[in-house]
Amino acid sequence: MLAEAPDREKEHPMPIVVTDISRVNAKIAEGFGAIGVATVHEAQGRKGLLASHMRPVYRPAHIAGPAVTCSVAPGDNWMIHVAVEQCRPGDVLVVAPTSPCEDGYFGDLLAGSLMAHGVIGLVIDAGVRDAAELTKMQFPVWSKAIFAQGTVKETIGDVNTPVVCAGQLVNAGDLIVADDDGVVVVRKGEAADVLAKARKREADEEEKRAKLNAGVLGLDLYRMRERLAEKGLKYVKSQD
Amino acid sequence: MLAEAPDREKEHPMPIVVTDISRVNAKIAEGFGAIGVATVHEAQGRKGLLASHMRPVYRPAHIAGPAVTCSVAPGDNWMIHVAVEQCRPGDVLVVAPTSPCEDGYFGDLLAGSLMAHGVIGLVIDAGVRDAAELTKMQFPVWSKAIFAQGTVKETIGDVNTPVVCAGQLVNAGDLIVADDDGVVVVRKGEAADVLAKARKREADEEEKRAKLNAGVLGLDLYRMRERLAEKGLKYVKSQD
Amino acid sequence: MLAEAPDREKEHPMPIVVTDISRVNAKIAEGFGAIGVATVHEAQGRKGLLASHMRPVYRPAHIAGPAVTCSVAPGDNWMIHVAVEQCRPGDVLVVAPTSPCEDGYFGDLLAGSLMAHGVIGLVIDAGVRDAAELTKMQFPVWSKAIFAQGTVKETIGDVNTPVVCAGQLVNAGDLIVADDDGVVVVRKGEAADVLAKARKREADEEEKRAKLNAGVLGLDLYRMRERLAEKGLKYVKSQD
Amino acid sequence: MLAEAPDREKEHPMPIVVTDISRVNAKIAEGFGAIGVATVHEAQGRKGLLASHMRPVYRPAHIAGPAVTCSVAPGDNWMIHVAVEQCRPGDVLVVAPTSPCEDGYFGDLLAGSLMAHGVIGLVIDAGVRDAAELTKMQFPVWSKAIFAQGTVKETIGDVNTPVVCAGQLVNAGDLIVADDDGVVVVRKGEAADVLAKARKREADEEEKRAKLNAGVLGLDLYRMRERLAEKGLKYVKSQD
Amino acid sequence: MLAEAPDREKEHPMPIVVTDISRVNAKIAEGFGAIGVATVHEAQGRKGLLASHMRPVYRPAHIAGPAVTCSVAPGDNWMIHVAVEQCRPGDVLVVAPTSPCEDGYFGDLLAGSLMAHGVIGLVIDAGVRDAAELTKMQFPVWSKAIFAQGTVKETIGDVNTPVVCAGQLVNAGDLIVADDDGVVVVRKGEAADVLAKARKREADEEEKRAKLNAGVLGLDLYRMRERLAEKGLKYVKSQD
Amino acid sequence: MLAEAPDREKEHPMPIVVTDISRVNAKIAEGFGAIGVATVHEAQGRKGLLASHMRPVYRPAHIAGPAVTCSVAPGDNWMIHVAVEQCRPGDVLVVAPTSPCEDGYFGDLLAGSLMAHGVIGLVIDAGVRDAAELTKMQFPVWSKAIFAQGTVKETIGDVNTPVVCAGQLVNAGDLIVADDDGVVVVRKGEAADVLAKARKREADEEEKRAKLNAGVLGLDLYRMRERLAEKGLKYVKSQD
Repeated sequence: MLAEAPDREKEHPMPIVVTDISRVNAKIAEGFGAIGVATVHEAQGRKGLLASHMRPVYRPAHIAGPAVTCSVAPGDNWMIHVAVEQCRPGDVLVVAPTSPCEDGYFGDLLAGSLMAHGVIGLVIDAGVRDAAELTKMQFPVWSKAIFAQGTVKETIGDVNTPVVCAGQLVNAGDLIVADDDGVVVVRKGEAADVLAKARKREADEEEKRAKLNAGVLGLDLYRMRERLAEKGLKYVKSQD
Repeated sequence: MLAEAPDREKEHPMPIVVTDISRVNAKIAEGFGAIGVATVHEAQGRKGLLASHMRPVYRPAHIAGPAVTCSVAPGDNWMIHVAVEQCRPGDVLVVAPTSPCEDGYFGDLLAGSLMAHGVIGLVIDAGVRDAAELTKMQFPVWSKAIFAQGTVKETIGDVNTPVVCAGQLVNAGDLIVADDDGVVVVRKGEAADVLAKARKREADEEEKRAKLNAGVLGLDLYRMRERLAEKGLKYVKSQD
Repeated sequence: MLAEAPDREKEHPMPIVVTDISRVNAKIAEGFGAIGVATVHEAQGRKGLLASHMRPVYRPAHIAGPAVTCSVAPGDNWMIHVAVEQCRPGDVLVVAPTSPCEDGYFGDLLAGSLMAHGVIGLVIDAGVRDAAELTKMQFPVWSKAIFAQGTVKETIGDVNTPVVCAGQLVNAGDLIVADDDGVVVVRKGEAADVLAKARKREADEEEKRAKLNAGVLGLDLYRMRERLAEKGLKYVKSQD
Repeated sequence: MLAEAPDREKEHPMPIVVTDISRVNAKIAEGFGAIGVATVHEAQGRKGLLASHMRPVYRPAHIAGPAVTCSVAPGDNWMIHVAVEQCRPGDVLVVAPTSPCEDGYFGDLLAGSLMAHGVIGLVIDAGVRDAAELTKMQFPVWSKAIFAQGTVKETIGDVNTPVVCAGQLVNAGDLIVADDDGVVVVRKGEAADVLAKARKREADEEEKRAKLNAGVLGLDLYRMRERLAEKGLKYVKSQD
Repeated sequence: MLAEAPDREKEHPMPIVVTDISRVNAKIAEGFGAIGVATVHEAQGRKGLLASHMRPVYRPAHIAGPAVTCSVAPGDNWMIHVAVEQCRPGDVLVVAPTSPCEDGYFGDLLAGSLMAHGVIGLVIDAGVRDAAELTKMQFPVWSKAIFAQGTVKETIGDVNTPVVCAGQLVNAGDLIVADDDGVVVVRKGEAADVLAKARKREADEEEKRAKLNAGVLGLDLYRMRERLAEKGLKYVKSQD
Repeated sequence: MLAEAPDREKEHPMPIVVTDISRVNAKIAEGFGAIGVATVHEAQGRKGLLASHMRPVYRPAHIAGPAVTCSVAPGDNWMIHVAVEQCRPGDVLVVAPTSPCEDGYFGDLLAGSLMAHGVIGLVIDAGVRDAAELTKMQFPVWSKAIFAQGTVKETIGDVNTPVVCAGQLVNAGDLIVADDDGVVVVRKGEAADVLAKARKREADEEEKRAKLNAGVLGLDLYRMRERLAEKGLKYVKSQD
């Protein structure tokens, strides 16, 4: 909750950088590298999905890792430099502007810096630039826009406090999974459980996939006919 | 017209599945496989084009086949399973939500099911997911969004009744043509005529293309100069 | 300024085609071919960037050349044919509708015509069609939409008068640079200066890039720590 | 269905004006004058609602009458003049552009003309202008935009053929009901039945309204508690 | 934090209704009734503001009270009936769909029910209907859309768990302030402090307002001239 | 043209405030107070109209006066304070952000300040706040959004240099006319001519209005029948 960091709210209402955050277990995060966003989203009860405007700069792309969060003013990318220092290998940087903005907060220089520190991707509810270079470098980015518009470095914000990014609350250390379908956040404390459920889901789907690919109808596979009839669905021959 | 299915409107106002629909002639549909959407749209007098937000999941892609239509509630993909059973090889599934929705109604499992029944593509005025897998499977999809958001299976709707999809009326059995430029619908009874006109158009264009590529100006090729002058167009030398 | 062309405003208020425009120096334009839009935008003081909805039809793409401008009515592409005649090798055609429109003003035939006259790309604040063919021809286009919707040829407009395209004023002969990040306009008279600044910027960035890639933090490289502290930024250890 | 007017499609593919249309019964239309759009929409099984971007120029406003339909080119209002002649007292003019447009097709002069012929309102999936005058004249208009942008008179279109307006098929003579919540279309042949259902619905609601206003919970009034429990809903005391 | 309700996440992953929530102090909430959203937003450090698409159904309107939160499926208003029972006099109902939706979840019947229980307003990141009646009843509503589209009652969700509504996290019992400028959320535990700051701010503004209304320039009142000069601002006489 | 202010571009590329601008003649500006935006737009050949998202905070509203222009960074309203000093009685302040932004740059304090200096209205391609107070004060504002989001004062920009505001170039001293239909800019040097044309247009319209109100059809008044027939329009009797 935004009110959780007591030091900040009560004693110094100025922006803070929270250091030494705890992260989702690395082994568990790694396990999500093989699981798609749609499956993760289903496995945790259809929650945690960022808005549909969050799109990958290039496709295909697929990452899973703990979030370092960063709150930025509109048109001001200063805090991203502060956030880099808080990142550890395997992290995903999550950037949320305090009011809607499509400016290009991030480009190839910052991508090089993040890669040097082992960061595996960026999720930003704003714009990025140097799209061609990001693609060449194969640094995966999910953003709201690609836009060359520059930013200033005048206003400070928070690092590693909870943010709402593209409609979802993200806490520092929560797990981020992102692929061609979008971005989902999994709570740090729920990741192990969600991973188990997601793997079970994938196993179940494998069997269903084989049957569907062989021509079995979902109507029969999922035994839907009776319930459809109960709801009142009728079949009528065309009179064309 | 939505009022056309008399049984439904008068006697059972519940959703219906219309079976045994008649389809645009298969030979004619096949003929459209070599013709682009822009040409089809022109050949039938600039009508039938779905809205510009209907974009292919991957490019290039190009299909032509009869529509099986499916009406779905927002956030509810149940009827897609019902629609699969009504599809025949060569069909295109056309899905329209009853109010605007970007949820991911469709993914790789349903794509596998449709492919098993010979369906050649999906047109949906909503979201889809498993974009990476759909690309790998080369199952062509035109949609409003790519979004992992899951759907429920609670509300029934119609299959093979007329729907308005992305701003255009589509009847079951009408011809759907889709490519990188978007999606167009051709009335079942007009398809032969439109095909002939489209082919003639392509032949005419071939000649024009050769001239334009050789540097002939459209002004001369289409004899526009006189009419432009009549409209009052003047040429003025720059005073820079 | 739109009022600049005195002949037009006072004596013939009808649309005009301005011929024999002066263009940004060809050597200078060529120099911009190696410089990205984001760098150009920064080098000229963060001005001149077209709106973020201007996206390339295919990626990667990168062009730089003088603008031939063209004003069109909504849903009417007649003036593009008039504009082709005013183009010279190396030019970029810039098309702005007089009210917002996503119709497909431009396709493969016009692209072939422009290529025959040496034009290197199109920037249009509206829609284009034949996206698959444009990609195959490798004719670069930046547009607001891909949409097969046809246009008419009924209303005349201006060629080579100043236009506002996607939120930026473009004069005939100004330099257009476009790449995967979008489109920027550079005033004819400022291009040499901007080129020098952009090259210096790139040289400076090269050094910074090496350091960032080696793991030096932006905080240290740009000496930000003191100013951040002055602004009141605090570091707080997580209490998780 | 768009293909219904056989003369047009086969023999003269040029735009047509259909005269002497049959209209929904005047008595029935009048009956809808006291019933809100939301109730009509429910009474006919939640269909026929135009998109949410259709908003009244002023509020409150409430009309019900048969549609005269009019198809217009983007940025071209010529056919509205043709449509006026086809209107009869009590009619509602329904205008649909052939591709999306926000231009101001309609203003106080045309409103005066329509009022002189007894037309009771305009529904247009585009822009209108003279908003202050329309308000003073109390001529009700539902539109996509208020925008002063002028239009030309160059391209012809259809009058009284079926159109898709804001996502719904409207046939000439169908009933249009519009109020502060938006616009709904009712098929000519279903209007009597829908009116009866709507009136019954209103009567039923009156009783429910009295109970709800007296503090009875919907949970009890609609007997929802058991079904909610079956679905698995649990009540948990807060541990704040 | 969404993970906070431990019972739910671990033992029963089904939707829950949290009862007996603690609320922001009633006296404090009442104090906010005289303070505008913009002032509240400033007073708490420019945080907590819901997205700009949240607009009042009628103007002017101004409310302040504790939130009862309600999570709903797209196109399904069932849980609003469940939420009514959890409301107390002075509460504000806050409704967030689990994926974006503009359907009309709420109308005059539910408004009457809420009024009967003393609820002072509704904030919903979706659509509402019966706009004319809501205005007549003077029941204030902030919503994303006015849209007559009906909803079903099939899917359960949470009441009084934390929700993200229009981009902001809202906990049950947090303070909601809404007026013609939009909606802001204030944490329960910070409300007293924010109220004090907001009142001080208003007092300070009163003095400034008097000076500004008397013609004193903000440049002088806020002593900006020196800092502007330091930043490099120059004054240049026009050469027109 | 943006390059016009030579001092700035060549010698000090920093932001500037241009003082002592020349303005459109006050008598002429006053004359426009009685003429609607749609008429002005037509009278000057359908140019100069700002985008349709520019809407009045309250209706009705109608102003005409010379522009003082102001360029602002996203989320930064500092330069508005600088611009106030450059305003004279009768002026209209025109504010354009350098990249898209909906933040609330302007509220009741600044409105009071502007009113104290005789400014008659604000046109801003961004957000404003204190909508209820602006309405009470009857200070007319046209904006892109109403949004309480606060702004900072960190970045300087230009005053009285040419800006592109909502898609139109506005020079300091140009005439701004705004009413319920939107906002139009008229070049300083063309205002007298446009005023004469607009008055003539209004006079002509008066006569037409009388005839249309008396039931004369536009088809006859504007002698359209022959040209429609030439274009191929056919009349077909309905076969319902």
